[in-house]
Amino acid sequence: MSLFGVFGSSKKSATNARERLKLVLSHERTANIPYLEDMQKEILQVVQKYTKATDIHFSTNSNSHISTLEVQITLGNA
Amino acid sequence: MSLFGVFGSSKKSATNARERLKLVLSHERTANIPYLEDMQKEILQVVQKYTKATDIHFSTNSNSHISTLEVQITLGNA
Repeated sequence: MSLFGVFGSSKKSATNARERLKLVLSHERTANIPYLEDMQKEILQVVQKYTKATDIHFSTNSNSHISTLEVQITLGNA
Repeated sequence: MSLFGVFGSSKKSATNARERLKLVLSHERTANIPYLEDMQKEILQVVQKYTKATDIHFSTNSNSHISTLEVQITLGNA
């Protein structure tokens, strides 16, 4: 449920015309996923095709257990 | 960083041959995203194409600000 905090300023942005979408892909670091990079690219192509968003921000994180890719997409003016 | 807790039993599962991938797609509830359902389906098709996973578990959550789709994918034996 901690995900509900993902948009730090959701109250403020509710009054903002820009809309945001967030995609997070995570896996255990022990996992051997040779196709991960290709799959990520293809997922992002799908997102870009639908959203036509140009403002896409990536970040990656990892600790000893989990690797995470976060993608923040700003959908532009509604 | 709270996402690092997404796999409740990551320590245990490190000794387990099954590997897991998690995808989370979230957006502000105020956002008008008419293509959301189609986009989700297409993203899942990409995931299924790459992972060939049959064990896919969905859950949705929403509060007053954020709607979230969580997809847990068990990749099968390594």
